[in-house]
Amino acid sequence: MTRRTLGKTLLAGAAALPVAASETGKFPLPAGYSVADMGGLKYFAPAKPEHIVMLIYPGMTALDLIGPQQAFGYVMGAKVDLVWKTTDPVVSDTGVKMIPSATFKDVTQPPDLIFVPGGGKGTVALMTDPAVLDFLVQSASGARYVTSVCSGSLVLGAAGLLRGYRATSHWAVRDVLPTLGAELTAGRIVEDRTRITAGGVTAGIDFGLYLAAKLRGEDYGRSVELMLEYDPHPPFHSGTPAEARADIRDGMTKMYAPLAKAAMASAVMAKARWT
Amino acid sequence: MTRRTLGKTLLAGAAALPVAASETGKFPLPAGYSVADMGGLKYFAPAKPEHIVMLIYPGMTALDLIGPQQAFGYVMGAKVDLVWKTTDPVVSDTGVKMIPSATFKDVTQPPDLIFVPGGGKGTVALMTDPAVLDFLVQSASGARYVTSVCSGSLVLGAAGLLRGYRATSHWAVRDVLPTLGAELTAGRIVEDRTRITAGGVTAGIDFGLYLAAKLRGEDYGRSVELMLEYDPHPPFHSGTPAEARADIRDGMTKMYAPLAKAAMASAVMAKARWT
Repeated sequence: MTRRTLGKTLLAGAAALPVAASETGKFPLPAGYSVADMGGLKYFAPAKPEHIVMLIYPGMTALDLIGPQQAFGYVMGAKVDLVWKTTDPVVSDTGVKMIPSATFKDVTQPPDLIFVPGGGKGTVALMTDPAVLDFLVQSASGARYVTSVCSGSLVLGAAGLLRGYRATSHWAVRDVLPTLGAELTAGRIVEDRTRITAGGVTAGIDFGLYLAAKLRGEDYGRSVELMLEYDPHPPFHSGTPAEARADIRDGMTKMYAPLAKAAMASAVMAKARWT
Repeated sequence: MTRRTLGKTLLAGAAALPVAASETGKFPLPAGYSVADMGGLKYFAPAKPEHIVMLIYPGMTALDLIGPQQAFGYVMGAKVDLVWKTTDPVVSDTGVKMIPSATFKDVTQPPDLIFVPGGGKGTVALMTDPAVLDFLVQSASGARYVTSVCSGSLVLGAAGLLRGYRATSHWAVRDVLPTLGAELTAGRIVEDRTRITAGGVTAGIDFGLYLAAKLRGEDYGRSVELMLEYDPHPPFHSGTPAEARADIRDGMTKMYAPLAKAAMASAVMAKARWT
């Protein structure tokens, strides 16, 4: 029996197979998936490949997007789209020009996963952009995972999608979340039912690996972590406000203050749409 | 005295200022830089803003590029270009379409920093691409930093730029380095005189922060680390071959074997160009 036919056999018989938790780690087999085998490694095979829709937009933080995109791109079989209003290039907050692979109109079926990256002023602008908020509401209805990294959660929140959910965001703007009806929760990745939000920028890598494991099983997630050589060595101990030197933290808080203020004002406006 | 004029004054007087090591952390003030102040935080101000040239190409790993690009993009004043043969979009190994900001021909002066991201087959293809190798050799002459993340070091090596230097690469292909005349050295970031190479994919974030600190001082690097909320929580302990479960490591090693073999063959061909 070749590896391929073995995979097919396992796939075909999987609906009837009770999956031992030990075979897939701490991640449960999602409904409609079966356990398959690839060179001895067990993974979750979807009955139908997932459609993952990642919003991209002017002013986004490129690393918020690319951390998870790299992991999603390694999720075998999944279709990953970068979606915006048009297919014109969008420019990130550090000047990277990316071309969307699809427009809002191309997404005619709710995706399995919808994702929003964060950013600065560009992100705040989305919080009161009806075309974006409507698209998110529509995509989120029926999506299995409604997700974000960094200040992307403010856009989900502005769409009303975090009302009654625990959620997190970039440290500098996370205090805006309660105004959007979310329960601000500390954590690198905060999961509450269908909502999965992650902290600032680099949290997207932890998030991407976590999602890879949810969609393909823990061993697959472990494999992607090794592919990405994810053995971080932060050069300074300065990754959180609690850890940073006081003067650095105060300086950055001051720098972000106008953005946090603008986000709060936009949250109040956004809320008026759905209350 | 406003913050701006204070900065200017410090800048003007800096050539004559002896810089106390304690003011700038463990990173030495580069020649031609002065210590300036921004809201109480000391940083290195360049006499002339740096030009950072990042190679982008079909099949690159987007995260190899964007990790450091995000950090470089926050290096105040620096001009960061994404450079390729043409300004046609290039597609990453996970399907991200990016538009180069400049072509090889536009780089008429050696940049301060030249950077090569890694990838899979696309990276191996560059190892025997004369146009790319010639561009790198030309750019590297006079560059203060000749750098890479992941398998990008194989391209630097193929250009003959790592001969006699300590260097690293992605774990799956790093054994190719000695064939290119480099001294393979363990380490997330390996610095040897003007050469700074980093490990696989996510090492680019550590690398980007390290370079931000080299160019703007340690406090600036600490500030960027906080901006990026770099408080990594790898979901599995699987980021290096040593740390990964044996079957995961063996499975991934097997998966990468054809790539490692192709890279070795290309290294032998590349070497023939300069020996």
